Amino acid sequence: MRVAGIVAEYNPFHNGHLYHLNRTRELCSADYVVCVMSGNFIQRGEPAIVNKWARAKMALLSGADLVLELPVVYAMASAEFFAWGAVKILDSIGVVDNICFGSECGEVAPLEAVADILAFEPDLYKELLREKIGMGISYPSAREEALKQYCSQTMHTFDAASIEEIIGSPNNILGIEYIKALKKLNSKIKPVTVKRICNSYNSEELTGAISSATSIRKHIYETIDSKNGCIDVENHEFLPETSFNILAEEFQNQRGPVSYNNFSDILLSIIRKMTLEELKDVPYVSEGLENRIKDAANNSGSFDGLLDKITTKRYTGTRIKRSLFSILAGIKKSDFEWFNANGGPQYIRVLGFNENGKQILAHAKKTSQLPIIVKAASFKNSDNPLIRRMLEIESAATDMYVLGYRNPEFKKAGQEFTQNVIRV
Amino acid sequence: MRVAGIVAEYNPFHNGHLYHLNRTRELCSADYVVCVMSGNFIQRGEPAIVNKWARAKMALLSGADLVLELPVVYAMASAEFFAWGAVKILDSIGVVDNICFGSECGEVAPLEAVADILAFEPDLYKELLREKIGMGISYPSAREEALKQYCSQTMHTFDAASIEEIIGSPNNILGIEYIKALKKLNSKIKPVTVKRICNSYNSEELTGAISSATSIRKHIYETIDSKNGCIDVENHEFLPETSFNILAEEFQNQRGPVSYNNFSDILLSIIRKMTLEELKDVPYVSEGLENRIKDAANNSGSFDGLLDKITTKRYTGTRIKRSLFSILAGIKKSDFEWFNANGGPQYIRVLGFNENGKQILAHAKKTSQLPIIVKAASFKNSDNPLIRRMLEIESAATDMYVLGYRNPEFKKAGQEFTQNVIRV
Repeated sequence: MRVAGIVAEYNPFHNGHLYHLNRTRELCSADYVVCVMSGNFIQRGEPAIVNKWARAKMALLSGADLVLELPVVYAMASAEFFAWGAVKILDSIGVVDNICFGSECGEVAPLEAVADILAFEPDLYKELLREKIGMGISYPSAREEALKQYCSQTMHTFDAASIEEIIGSPNNILGIEYIKALKKLNSKIKPVTVKRICNSYNSEELTGAISSATSIRKHIYETIDSKNGCIDVENHEFLPETSFNILAEEFQNQRGPVSYNNFSDILLSIIRKMTLEELKDVPYVSEGLENRIKDAANNSGSFDGLLDKITTKRYTGTRIKRSLFSILAGIKKSDFEWFNANGGPQYIRVLGFNENGKQILAHAKKTSQLPIIVKAASFKNSDNPLIRRMLEIESAATDMYVLGYRNPEFKKAGQEFTQNVIRV
Repeated sequence: MRVAGIVAEYNPFHNGHLYHLNRTRELCSADYVVCVMSGNFIQRGEPAIVNKWARAKMALLSGADLVLELPVVYAMASAEFFAWGAVKILDSIGVVDNICFGSECGEVAPLEAVADILAFEPDLYKELLREKIGMGISYPSAREEALKQYCSQTMHTFDAASIEEIIGSPNNILGIEYIKALKKLNSKIKPVTVKRICNSYNSEELTGAISSATSIRKHIYETIDSKNGCIDVENHEFLPETSFNILAEEFQNQRGPVSYNNFSDILLSIIRKMTLEELKDVPYVSEGLENRIKDAANNSGSFDGLLDKITTKRYTGTRIKRSLFSILAGIKKSDFEWFNANGGPQYIRVLGFNENGKQILAHAKKTSQLPIIVKAASFKNSDNPLIRRMLEIESAATDMYVLGYRNPEFKKAGQEFTQNVIRV
């Protein structure tokens, strides 16, 4: 039994994802594919376009066998913690042989070399990093500069130009983080990478059958008919038919497309009501950022205005959005630190599976180092306070997410515990 | 210098209000008219259709000389505390000779007789009231029953039928409460009443030149063109031209019409985030109502759904709405009790005045028992914690109210302190 693992957001599941899924099977000679997927909020600090159950179904209908949830605490974290949380889940389930991720460079070796430096942080590197951070630039830029200088000073295999190329690409960065997490966990899982085809991750323009998720979301927001919930049906070559049908059903039910704009008033009201002390306890809020957030909420009338007023060279828009949606979801810095100090994800939450996935689960019952949750309601009153709190946060996040729907019928709270696992 | 006082909401200022204002001048032989007006939230537990500055301007342009604000803590209270707060302000300013209110019965004497019972609560009445409340009916119904029985048992001037007629009408009830408050304050202000003409207070149907505020608001919500903010211009015979123009300007700027529906998602998100302990500290929440509110917020997707799930025979819709919008405004039961234990309103806040009003203010400087606030910002850091907190609540309420506008430009917080007093 060979099992490959994938970490994904499927926001929404498109042809590029399908290509990656099929290549994963080939490259890993995998009989089974397990996906760890973000839930209702994603790594760029935004609500997903449709809910996690719909997205899990898309993945299952396109060939994934088992979809597990990356808890929102990690799904909305920096690349480092996002990757660590996801890899921890793949590692803990005890049946995964490979992790297969897309990357711009298409080779594991260079990513591994960088991961080594980042995982074990030699003193010189640490010193260089501190120095760069002190210059007031963002953390990703500081890391890039420190790595470049470290490699040139230690006569490392890489020169500055190669480093720049490697870590200047978002999927390479995630790949490095997956490898780093594997190293830190001393995992037996072997990394494999698929070279990304065509467009770049952040491209805003549709580019035919393989288009970026960003461009697809943009297309959906721009062409959706708010009355009947239809998107432009003539043009959906970038989505598998199954994904398109699921999206169409969600939109017709007015359970999407969910956008951060749907939360403008809610976020403004919540932040205006929060004290500076409470804002300090939000992930990624430090060095007085609470004051900027508070002032911005008072002086803005929209989400874009809010974001614009907080973002600086040092605090990127993505980082700020993670803080803002952590506020919405009710995630506290103290929660995040508590989980990190206790091994990260506290359970393996199943969002959906097919017949193959059922077999993986049967096997995983014997191998998993973390409890496997199929029915969330059964763990609501767990004896383990870490599990309880992690699930409570997940549920609170969903109770906020559903307020982004237009149909009042679907805005009810508690869906975290009433929605059944998806079986296809 | 003869000064008449009026308590009003002017939501919006219509021809019935104009009639009342003119009759007040006649009946009281008044040289000046002072209005105490609700701010951005009104007594039926809802946001006002347009903000308090626009409404103050309407009143001033229709002949009011000075418009004072009834603090939101009292503006959204039960008839008893609403009246007490307003009368306290009129009494404290020290220049008002009469209070003139509309009533269904049109005579002061019968209202005064009932006010006597309610103000001094004879033991028998108190006992009857307790008994009726114990039967699980709403407080207003219990009071009506207790009064009827008290009058019949004590061979009072009134029989049950007269009592029913007197206290079965909302404006009579308010009149009784004004008189009761005057008695409790031992005020020198004399009550005067204008018999209401035409329609009833709660009528939903427009009835020509004199139409109820309820029917006018309904007409506005139904006919407004959400694109250009215009209401049906052919039909506004029920509003003075000045009121119409102010409304039109507010709507064109998308600063209204504000409706409770604009706060559905905000309220659902806030209540879902609140603990039961916090909900217990909301005005008018008692006897486990916090559980009903919490459950309803979890199981509803709209304001109407929320209200519907909480309302019972005992807890009327109006009472529930007061609690819900107190949550939005951030008013706590403990604040309310603290103010009540310390004389009620802590200041006299001026929303607007004309030349006559300026003279009243000059005079009031010598007579007022409470500080007069013309510039709210100057009192933000008052030494008196009661003043500070009352103003803080007012500002927080406005910071939430403006989120009900559609135009992001006008949603900024802090308008409580930046908006100038209205001078006409």
